Amino acid sequence: MRFDKRAPAQIRDVKITRDFNIYAEGSVLIEIGNTKVIVTASVEEKVPPFLKGTGQGWITAEYSMLPRATETRNIREIVRGSPSGRTHEIQRLIGRALRAAVDLKKLGERTIWVDCDVIQADGGTRVTSITGAFIAVADAMIKITKEGRVKQNPLKDYVAAISVGRLKNEVILDLNYQEDSTAEVDMNVVMTGKGEFVEIQATGEEHSFSQEDFNKMLEYAKLGIKKLIHIQKELIEGIPSIGHWERKNIKEFVYIDR
Amino acid sequence: MRFDKRAPAQIRDVKITRDFNIYAEGSVLIEIGNTKVIVTASVEEKVPPFLKGTGQGWITAEYSMLPRATETRNIREIVRGSPSGRTHEIQRLIGRALRAAVDLKKLGERTIWVDCDVIQADGGTRVTSITGAFIAVADAMIKITKEGRVKQNPLKDYVAAISVGRLKNEVILDLNYQEDSTAEVDMNVVMTGKGEFVEIQATGEEHSFSQEDFNKMLEYAKLGIKKLIHIQKELIEGIPSIGHWERKNIKEFVYIDR
Amino acid sequence: MRFDKRAPAQIRDVKITRDFNIYAEGSVLIEIGNTKVIVTASVEEKVPPFLKGTGQGWITAEYSMLPRATETRNIREIVRGSPSGRTHEIQRLIGRALRAAVDLKKLGERTIWVDCDVIQADGGTRVTSITGAFIAVADAMIKITKEGRVKQNPLKDYVAAISVGRLKNEVILDLNYQEDSTAEVDMNVVMTGKGEFVEIQATGEEHSFSQEDFNKMLEYAKLGIKKLIHIQKELIEGIPSIGHWERKNIKEFVYIDR
Amino acid sequence: MRFDKRAPAQIRDVKITRDFNIYAEGSVLIEIGNTKVIVTASVEEKVPPFLKGTGQGWITAEYSMLPRATETRNIREIVRGSPSGRTHEIQRLIGRALRAAVDLKKLGERTIWVDCDVIQADGGTRVTSITGAFIAVADAMIKITKEGRVKQNPLKDYVAAISVGRLKNEVILDLNYQEDSTAEVDMNVVMTGKGEFVEIQATGEEHSFSQEDFNKMLEYAKLGIKKLIHIQKELIEGIPSIGHWERKNIKEFVYIDR
Amino acid sequence: MRFDKRAPAQIRDVKITRDFNIYAEGSVLIEIGNTKVIVTASVEEKVPPFLKGTGQGWITAEYSMLPRATETRNIREIVRGSPSGRTHEIQRLIGRALRAAVDLKKLGERTIWVDCDVIQADGGTRVTSITGAFIAVADAMIKITKEGRVKQNPLKDYVAAISVGRLKNEVILDLNYQEDSTAEVDMNVVMTGKGEFVEIQATGEEHSFSQEDFNKMLEYAKLGIKKLIHIQKELIEGIPSIGHWERKNIKEFVYIDR
Amino acid sequence: MRFDKRAPAQIRDVKITRDFNIYAEGSVLIEIGNTKVIVTASVEEKVPPFLKGTGQGWITAEYSMLPRATETRNIREIVRGSPSGRTHEIQRLIGRALRAAVDLKKLGERTIWVDCDVIQADGGTRVTSITGAFIAVADAMIKITKEGRVKQNPLKDYVAAISVGRLKNEVILDLNYQEDSTAEVDMNVVMTGKGEFVEIQATGEEHSFSQEDFNKMLEYAKLGIKKLIHIQKELIEGIPSIGHWERKNIKEFVYIDR
Repeated sequence: MRFDKRAPAQIRDVKITRDFNIYAEGSVLIEIGNTKVIVTASVEEKVPPFLKGTGQGWITAEYSMLPRATETRNIREIVRGSPSGRTHEIQRLIGRALRAAVDLKKLGERTIWVDCDVIQADGGTRVTSITGAFIAVADAMIKITKEGRVKQNPLKDYVAAISVGRLKNEVILDLNYQEDSTAEVDMNVVMTGKGEFVEIQATGEEHSFSQEDFNKMLEYAKLGIKKLIHIQKELIEGIPSIGHWERKNIKEFVYIDR
Repeated sequence: MRFDKRAPAQIRDVKITRDFNIYAEGSVLIEIGNTKVIVTASVEEKVPPFLKGTGQGWITAEYSMLPRATETRNIREIVRGSPSGRTHEIQRLIGRALRAAVDLKKLGERTIWVDCDVIQADGGTRVTSITGAFIAVADAMIKITKEGRVKQNPLKDYVAAISVGRLKNEVILDLNYQEDSTAEVDMNVVMTGKGEFVEIQATGEEHSFSQEDFNKMLEYAKLGIKKLIHIQKELIEGIPSIGHWERKNIKEFVYIDR
Repeated sequence: MRFDKRAPAQIRDVKITRDFNIYAEGSVLIEIGNTKVIVTASVEEKVPPFLKGTGQGWITAEYSMLPRATETRNIREIVRGSPSGRTHEIQRLIGRALRAAVDLKKLGERTIWVDCDVIQADGGTRVTSITGAFIAVADAMIKITKEGRVKQNPLKDYVAAISVGRLKNEVILDLNYQEDSTAEVDMNVVMTGKGEFVEIQATGEEHSFSQEDFNKMLEYAKLGIKKLIHIQKELIEGIPSIGHWERKNIKEFVYIDR
Repeated sequence: MRFDKRAPAQIRDVKITRDFNIYAEGSVLIEIGNTKVIVTASVEEKVPPFLKGTGQGWITAEYSMLPRATETRNIREIVRGSPSGRTHEIQRLIGRALRAAVDLKKLGERTIWVDCDVIQADGGTRVTSITGAFIAVADAMIKITKEGRVKQNPLKDYVAAISVGRLKNEVILDLNYQEDSTAEVDMNVVMTGKGEFVEIQATGEEHSFSQEDFNKMLEYAKLGIKKLIHIQKELIEGIPSIGHWERKNIKEFVYIDR
Repeated sequence: MRFDKRAPAQIRDVKITRDFNIYAEGSVLIEIGNTKVIVTASVEEKVPPFLKGTGQGWITAEYSMLPRATETRNIREIVRGSPSGRTHEIQRLIGRALRAAVDLKKLGERTIWVDCDVIQADGGTRVTSITGAFIAVADAMIKITKEGRVKQNPLKDYVAAISVGRLKNEVILDLNYQEDSTAEVDMNVVMTGKGEFVEIQATGEEHSFSQEDFNKMLEYAKLGIKKLIHIQKELIEGIPSIGHWERKNIKEFVYIDR
Repeated sequence: MRFDKRAPAQIRDVKITRDFNIYAEGSVLIEIGNTKVIVTASVEEKVPPFLKGTGQGWITAEYSMLPRATETRNIREIVRGSPSGRTHEIQRLIGRALRAAVDLKKLGERTIWVDCDVIQADGGTRVTSITGAFIAVADAMIKITKEGRVKQNPLKDYVAAISVGRLKNEVILDLNYQEDSTAEVDMNVVMTGKGEFVEIQATGEEHSFSQEDFNKMLEYAKLGIKKLIHIQKELIEGIPSIGHWERKNIKEFVYIDR
């Protein structure tokens, strides 16, 4: 039994508020349990130097946490002087994940800046960022398609991510902070709507893990991501998601995994 | 007539959501018009070196803007390398303002870290931060008083702030971004609940201003701040505020200036 | 009675040495009491990116203090790594003040770099910098006008600044360091030759201040600035200044306020 | 057929020179194909603050590349100002991998600084660093055990790493730079001597990958790592490795995979 | 014939103003030709970590140039981000030179911070800094001896420095900027009052130099330094200097080399 | 008698491995005693801004030490934040030395980046870098001449460097670390194949030195450099060097001074 009484493969409540920001081309506030992330997708009409003249676009992500997003206040990165290694790793991961869902040729010479700002953290901030960012990017793509800035919607697939881990030799899905900080193995999986992987990262710090552990963790992750992609499809294409959900209003949507 | 049809001395709608964050000792989401700031007050049981052994506490503020808080995306300060001069100025202003409302001796050797993170900006972010931060700090003071960490509530006064300016030779109160960016004179005033000033900053970049202009701007600022302090009193002490307001639930409060 | 026996509204001796530097287009060593600032005005034939193609010029200021300008040696900013918030605030203030005295259109696409280096500090370094910088800029404007680089002298007004404060409930003008560090309220005023304000900054850190305090401080500031502008007029246009003064030689000028 | 005529699951020649440095407690020059890394393990008699008083040690890694380790010269990180995100990711990976092979309690309050400096790069620099670093750390552990600084050798397992990828839909092992830069999927695996995983990182940038792809890549990685661990056992414990190898002298050892 | 009509071995006019700063233990404004440097010597009652508990003191120097000390304005080091290599080299040279003149044991556990700020530069700023710094340090040593902070004056020798170079195959002494920037060989010599060397740095960038060139340059340098040390002895001990000089008042002293 | 039994004017064994790196235009591993430096010369087809359009090339050097190149591990410069003053001084020295050996006009608008990475340090790292860098640069020059990128080989002279010092009043040549750290006077000399000097740097930190000391040190330095230039001529032009040497294979060359 988990601290919050969830079953091993049960995910936390998911709440998504679209168009959270009045300026950005796409934006969401995504809440998974007590983890809350504001994601904005900003479209800039130019590309980094290495893509100039290629006709191809780019997606880059930045990730940050408000100082009091956590139990104890963290020093701002700007005060410490430079982003931590952890921040760099997460930003690169988010960027790669989103590039797997967008046809960069159809996007043309544009950059999508994805800003993920964690305003409250309770485990899984990087995977929550990816799942939310997909919706912000999708909304931005729909917007620039409608405006005629691109000929065809550059979205080519869905993408979502989830964490899974091994705790006291039990495999559990969607870890909160308490679980995450005591897990023996920590794994993040990014998967597309077509069921292919974009990223599998399994890490054992104090412990190593067997092939069997790995297989079970991957199984759970697939289950969880399928649910998240159902939510995305419900929001983007209006395909009813499986499980219990509630559309509170045009902008807010809540999903409860039972 | 102003773009948003307000009268010259009318302030925008004020929405305050208390306990916005589950970890911080005090926290609010303050929305004045489209300007939205998350403020957390974190209490740390130590003081900066220059106060060690004095028995006195300290309040320090940090201010930041999410990259897409504005019409066009800004580069994060961490990417540019260091906080801008503007950020420094604002942080010092917020800190000074709050120290005027708290008895630092009663606080004892503790630091209150006030984090103001602007998630959407439409003018007046620094004054909105001050007005909201007072509530977060007040809630934190109430909390540590209840917990017995201090003997007596260190709050000694209210403090709020507002912007005022001269635009096309008209004095207007509580400028939004459009007004602010075209104003000839820009002024920020910080005032206490007792009606004394903590800070008056009047600046004319392209234009200078007469004594008469100044007097009128100060008059309007006083009017606006009195309304904001009424709201603070309503929230902190339950004294009904003047004007139209609505308590949506225990955490959310909306004030409309008519 | 003040420590140095000055009357409440009396300013310290002012000594100005023009053409202090052989290279700069304009330069002064300004000494007000024991506060000494070297100011140079350097004209560069280009503007910052945001003004390119507008036909308009720019004035920007940098401010620094030698490490032993003060009673105890300060660590150089280059050793600490970045300019302090205080430095940023002062630089922005000096720049704004000078831009109020110069017609940036007449200046054309040129930048005036104003460098204020405090070689000895005894209170009022930012206002002394402004008063001195005006003369350096004026001399630079005269020089480039004579050289035909601009068609018409871009100077459009005079500008000077002074500090005023409240100490033991007395309002006093032109505070030295001893007074400044114990003042309850600290105020800096920047005013033009036409008697309009460019900047009013009144700050009470440990204390707040009433409308009455404010009015008296502003009155004293106006008195002081008028004297400083008389000195500037004497130097720039040869209009005899009021009060006691002495032209030691073509480059040095001393004014004593009696 | 691969460019260098290797079979899909064949690894490049491995050359290890132990005690490459006269000062470090452990050091190797590891060469896998044209990739050459100098690894030193330095033992410091203190731990980072978060471990003080716990009786437990720490292993931390730093990774860098000489500017001309690659085809085109890279700008030094010190010139660019800060380590890249890639450097941070790699350093964290190497540290985690080595901590899996050492009993940090037996190590006591000591830090092992592992420095991996790539002097020539031809693909797989991070996995080569891990495989080589294990030997440097093992030698350092043997040394401090002999010296009596620790009671028992803190080594608890072997650890090695290899890269594997999918290129033109073929799975290949131990990619050189040419293969790595055109691979559709890139995977790094870290495994212990007991056959458990420490890290699995599979990434598809332009492409995603199926479960089947993943399974085959993992199979190849296991094969390769087993060979590398055989080499480590030969060196550390004198257990003859499988395959073709040559001990050139007491310090140099060459293994050829046939 | 040199541009300023000096003979090859003639030095420029030397003007020294002692006690230039009211706060520092020792201070001078030294002017050699148009090169002007403010030097302050500040005594701090502690030493860097590597000297703690040794009973020995330290002398460290910092060197900086005001932005418009030169023909064209330089960007401040704080704006560029870090001191240049040139600054580091000069600071280390000045520190070494002064440590040769002071008995660090007699100084006790104190640091002398020597700040050399060039307010106008016309060649030879580093050697002028050394020659002036000696006087500031000597005055500081006299002061702390009088105050009883040290038992015995820690000064053990004089130290001065000069530049010499080869220009169009002629050896010339005390180069101004025009000469320095076109010289084929540039040499700085630091010598003590006893006639021993502390530093000889001879550099040929575009040209190399023969043993004969070197000998002549060293001969000229010795001649020049002897004159500077005579000036120092006149100021510190009242020993009349050789050559033409003028004591303008108790603080100002001018020496003209004829 | 020296610790390693060398005669006062005897140099340590010199081992040079050419073409140490498969990518760089020129590269050597130079070992003098236990000091080992990897030098690469990289040719870039552009010049720094100040040389654009002049038809002239440039040579610039970077110098770094691996963290465990020394007895105790050093913190990486990238971790401390910026290169030390010592690093800057050495880089400038190496650059100047090499520019004396190359005709920058014949080089044309190209930059040679010389990277000196010390992998093991036992005194004399900067002079060893210069001596080795000459060979790497020479090989790069030969290569681009053969390739027709330049019309004529830009090499115009040889250049080598050595350290010399005074220890217990004895002059000794080619100091190792133990000698260097206790020497009273430290001197580095850079000389060309024609016997002219490029640089003479003599420094006495705790001690000063007489003319006589200096003359003897310079004499020894000349002797040592002549031997090193013989080695360079043997390698570059095939002129047999004087003394005992051994060509181990086409890439490795060992010289023993007897």
